[in-house]
Amino acid sequence: MSRQKIYLDKLARFFQIRNKLLRQALAECLGTLILVMFGCGSVAQFSLSKGTHGQFLTVNFAFGFAATLGILVCGQVSGGHLNPAVTFSLCLLGRDKWRKFPMFFLFQTIGAFFAAAVIFGMYYDALWDTGCFTVDGENATAGIFATYPGKHLTLVNGFFDQIIGTAALIVCILAIVDPYNNPIPQGLEAFTVGFVVLVIGLAMGFNSGYAVNPARDFGPRLFTAMAGWGSDVFTFRNGWFLVPLCAPFLGAIIGTMIYQVMVGFHIEGEFRDRQEAKEQEENLQLTVTTNSKSNSNGKEANC
Amino acid sequence: MSRQKIYLDKLARFFQIRNKLLRQALAECLGTLILVMFGCGSVAQFSLSKGTHGQFLTVNFAFGFAATLGILVCGQVSGGHLNPAVTFSLCLLGRDKWRKFPMFFLFQTIGAFFAAAVIFGMYYDALWDTGCFTVDGENATAGIFATYPGKHLTLVNGFFDQIIGTAALIVCILAIVDPYNNPIPQGLEAFTVGFVVLVIGLAMGFNSGYAVNPARDFGPRLFTAMAGWGSDVFTFRNGWFLVPLCAPFLGAIIGTMIYQVMVGFHIEGEFRDRQEAKEQEENLQLTVTTNSKSNSNGKEANC
Amino acid sequence: MSRQKIYLDKLARFFQIRNKLLRQALAECLGTLILVMFGCGSVAQFSLSKGTHGQFLTVNFAFGFAATLGILVCGQVSGGHLNPAVTFSLCLLGRDKWRKFPMFFLFQTIGAFFAAAVIFGMYYDALWDTGCFTVDGENATAGIFATYPGKHLTLVNGFFDQIIGTAALIVCILAIVDPYNNPIPQGLEAFTVGFVVLVIGLAMGFNSGYAVNPARDFGPRLFTAMAGWGSDVFTFRNGWFLVPLCAPFLGAIIGTMIYQVMVGFHIEGEFRDRQEAKEQEENLQLTVTTNSKSNSNGKEANC
Amino acid sequence: MSRQKIYLDKLARFFQIRNKLLRQALAECLGTLILVMFGCGSVAQFSLSKGTHGQFLTVNFAFGFAATLGILVCGQVSGGHLNPAVTFSLCLLGRDKWRKFPMFFLFQTIGAFFAAAVIFGMYYDALWDTGCFTVDGENATAGIFATYPGKHLTLVNGFFDQIIGTAALIVCILAIVDPYNNPIPQGLEAFTVGFVVLVIGLAMGFNSGYAVNPARDFGPRLFTAMAGWGSDVFTFRNGWFLVPLCAPFLGAIIGTMIYQVMVGFHIEGEFRDRQEAKEQEENLQLTVTTNSKSNSNGKEANC
Repeated sequence: MSRQKIYLDKLARFFQIRNKLLRQALAECLGTLILVMFGCGSVAQFSLSKGTHGQFLTVNFAFGFAATLGILVCGQVSGGHLNPAVTFSLCLLGRDKWRKFPMFFLFQTIGAFFAAAVIFGMYYDALWDTGCFTVDGENATAGIFATYPGKHLTLVNGFFDQIIGTAALIVCILAIVDPYNNPIPQGLEAFTVGFVVLVIGLAMGFNSGYAVNPARDFGPRLFTAMAGWGSDVFTFRNGWFLVPLCAPFLGAIIGTMIYQVMVGFHIEGEFRDRQEAKEQEENLQLTVTTNSKSNSNGKEANC
Repeated sequence: MSRQKIYLDKLARFFQIRNKLLRQALAECLGTLILVMFGCGSVAQFSLSKGTHGQFLTVNFAFGFAATLGILVCGQVSGGHLNPAVTFSLCLLGRDKWRKFPMFFLFQTIGAFFAAAVIFGMYYDALWDTGCFTVDGENATAGIFATYPGKHLTLVNGFFDQIIGTAALIVCILAIVDPYNNPIPQGLEAFTVGFVVLVIGLAMGFNSGYAVNPARDFGPRLFTAMAGWGSDVFTFRNGWFLVPLCAPFLGAIIGTMIYQVMVGFHIEGEFRDRQEAKEQEENLQLTVTTNSKSNSNGKEANC
Repeated sequence: MSRQKIYLDKLARFFQIRNKLLRQALAECLGTLILVMFGCGSVAQFSLSKGTHGQFLTVNFAFGFAATLGILVCGQVSGGHLNPAVTFSLCLLGRDKWRKFPMFFLFQTIGAFFAAAVIFGMYYDALWDTGCFTVDGENATAGIFATYPGKHLTLVNGFFDQIIGTAALIVCILAIVDPYNNPIPQGLEAFTVGFVVLVIGLAMGFNSGYAVNPARDFGPRLFTAMAGWGSDVFTFRNGWFLVPLCAPFLGAIIGTMIYQVMVGFHIEGEFRDRQEAKEQEENLQLTVTTNSKSNSNGKEANC
Repeated sequence: MSRQKIYLDKLARFFQIRNKLLRQALAECLGTLILVMFGCGSVAQFSLSKGTHGQFLTVNFAFGFAATLGILVCGQVSGGHLNPAVTFSLCLLGRDKWRKFPMFFLFQTIGAFFAAAVIFGMYYDALWDTGCFTVDGENATAGIFATYPGKHLTLVNGFFDQIIGTAALIVCILAIVDPYNNPIPQGLEAFTVGFVVLVIGLAMGFNSGYAVNPARDFGPRLFTAMAGWGSDVFTFRNGWFLVPLCAPFLGAIIGTMIYQVMVGFHIEGEFRDRQEAKEQEENLQLTVTTNSKSNSNGKEANC
């Protein structure tokens, strides 16, 4: 073993974390960091360049493929949720343990927070050059990091918007990862989820910018509050920030129900029916065998 | 089994539908809902934002990838047609039973209807803020839900347009799902069909917006008639609504014929030729064996 | 067998063509028809809508994914060349027989011709409404079907442009289909070639619209000459039409050489070296065995 | 063997290079040529057409898919780095030998140099027609080939920008090629890396055009210095050219560290732990077996 390999091996042993939940949470943190870094980066590029280096479509592409890359980075370790609403939905269905939920929520938010910091550093000159650090107005730049409602949007419609968006996301994700409904080749889940995020951006982004992810919205919002935009990011429109923080969980419940009632329960049920039929048959055979055995035993006894 | 699992199991058993055709129809309903929700959602975003949050290209992407997602959600259960013209073509070729056709048509239309309702609810504020509930004019919003012809288009050319569009769709879909012509890896059909829909939108969307799908057009049209746009949606241009409702079936017939005559029949025929040759050989061998057997029998008898 | 199946079987037997070359040529014809129909359709949509329903990017996407779909439709039967320059390159390398070349060239051109006719019919109203049937000028529409040079382009630079474009296409295609250099999973070749065509359009489309395909350019040009644009399509710029008809073949030669010298020959050679080493070893063993045998024979004889 | 095959075989033997490192370097050269030819070609198309034949988004797509194609062309031979920073990162982790690094760097730069020459020849007329051969100003065309900072950018922020961009690239690439974290099907690495490059362009391209690759930037810059833009390409902004030449290596170190500390070391460690546990068990069994053997031997001896 060369000196380099020995040194690398030492490093690897030094940094290795053996607690599985912590390792998964760290991976979620990096995955969400990548999602939000590329996503918010594209909003920054579009908004700070006044449209010369981007458009709303590029933001959609960036968030979609960033979701793909984020899932690829951490999917093998943690499942690649990147979104507390997804973790919530999988816990609801009993596919993940509930104790994962707060841990993942926390680390996803931390990842999103640091991603906002990276983008802030990267476009520091451009932020000072072009924008002013406000939430509202011509040159407002708070929208680069967290989502804010359009002028036409009431709070009720905004809440409904976040519920629909998250429900659509959850229906598609559940179809993709349903173990009984296996529509795509192993390893392409990340790409497909990327397409889901892309399409949600293309169709549901006009109202308030499709957060559909409490961590993606709250982490960067917290960062902006600390980095110079002040408490306005929380008080804007009587606490708009609560909408992308709470509505997605309600949307996750609704999306899970819709998918299960329309498709999921039937596929799962068919599978269960078949298995039960098999078991019954085996039981029957067992009974028959036992009977014939006891009979033959009886006969033997008679002989 | 934890309390959560027991409850989930009870729910699953309560909602499970055992009739296969109904289950398939329900899946088609959800699939078409997803297709139309994302598709019409992107038209709404493009049209209500006056182009700041979308362009015609985003509509094309949205319909294409929405088709992919719709097929992924229901493909394992129902085949993922999402379009009565596709069901019609597969019935024509004897790959699906004719009794599926009316059932699928009905549920696809219902799915499209509810998708329009979801988008109406989602962009309720924006619809009231920006548009007026009319079919024609500067701020007309009926085009968000159903398709209407461009100013330059005559009814005859429009009919021809829908026939060509559907024929192109059917030729490509038949090539993708032809069991004798297996060009792509298992599980990528949904993505490829998405590309077909995308390309049709890029190349054939200028005349009247490429419905090429009676359910996708008629469901939302019915919804708009009930939601405030009134009977204009049916009477516009002397009954334009009949064109995207009827022409696609004619297009499906033509597309099926073209694919079969140019490619399908020959591949299928080659396969049949090979099989018949094999069978003949086996028959021959059988005859020979029988003969030699009877001969040897005869010999034996002679001995 | 139901009556429908019997009828379908009769149809299949009636239309079946047993000549392999003709079947392949027909498949190429349909594949090229799809490529040019979607490709030129997108140019028509972009140009006739004056940019409201398209942009140069949509043309690039349409040609790219149309190439994918064209290859998917005919690839299993004919290999999915869609381009005489590709056929030429594969013949050069001895991977296809030379007698295929004229047959494919003819049927590819016929396919492109009919594709132009389909787009002409589809956008008939729009052509009469918006454009005038000229090659040059503000509202010229000849560029929808065949390629014409930009104002800045000299004939020499145009010739060079077509050579580079085709060489780049061929290098990438050879890498994708090289049997010794197998970079992508079976069945994804069509998608990858689509990306190649897309990228060529993004990077090499400004000079004269990246024909890089004699059939794609000449078929539609012939159609326009007959459909009302007249002989101008041939006489424009002292016979520009010869450039996209001839330069691609030169480009195919250069591209084949570059790929083979930089990558292909070495991979192939490595494979051959290994095989020869194996054969030599076997020969050696054979000799040794023979020798030892003759020795033992000799010994036996001595005994 | 036909005369053509004999001739091809002779050619193949004549050109074959048996030195593996040289062969790999040649492949890297061709791959980088393809990356830079399509990438810079798209910038040329966008910039020389004044936006009629391109936009910033098309440049992003072109660089992304060009990376995919470049990797496909040379990946089987050399691994498809196309970027000295990637080679550097893999050497750091001990997955490639350090002696590859200078060789790859040289040939990648040569490939990028020739790619710039090809694009210069292809758009020669357009360059003379539209632009002037300067680095700064309204019609500057040096930005087609190498990257230059935006007006708002300081040197420090530009250095930071290149570090972040390269670190993001390296994190994603390491996740994709990590042998212990295998998220995608064999053969799709090239496409995924293409998406990474695309997303970096969408989110991190505003400051200075996301070189994140010393060879891609330095090769074309050298070409422009020789082809008429003069020494300005090096002296602009007090030696900006050093930033995309040096910062990416620093970024590669940081990206490698982040990925390894957050994900890589833990997966690798888990694998090592399992293997060590297995070995220990085997050792234990061996000891037990040996003991029992010696015991039984002892017993036998006792008998």
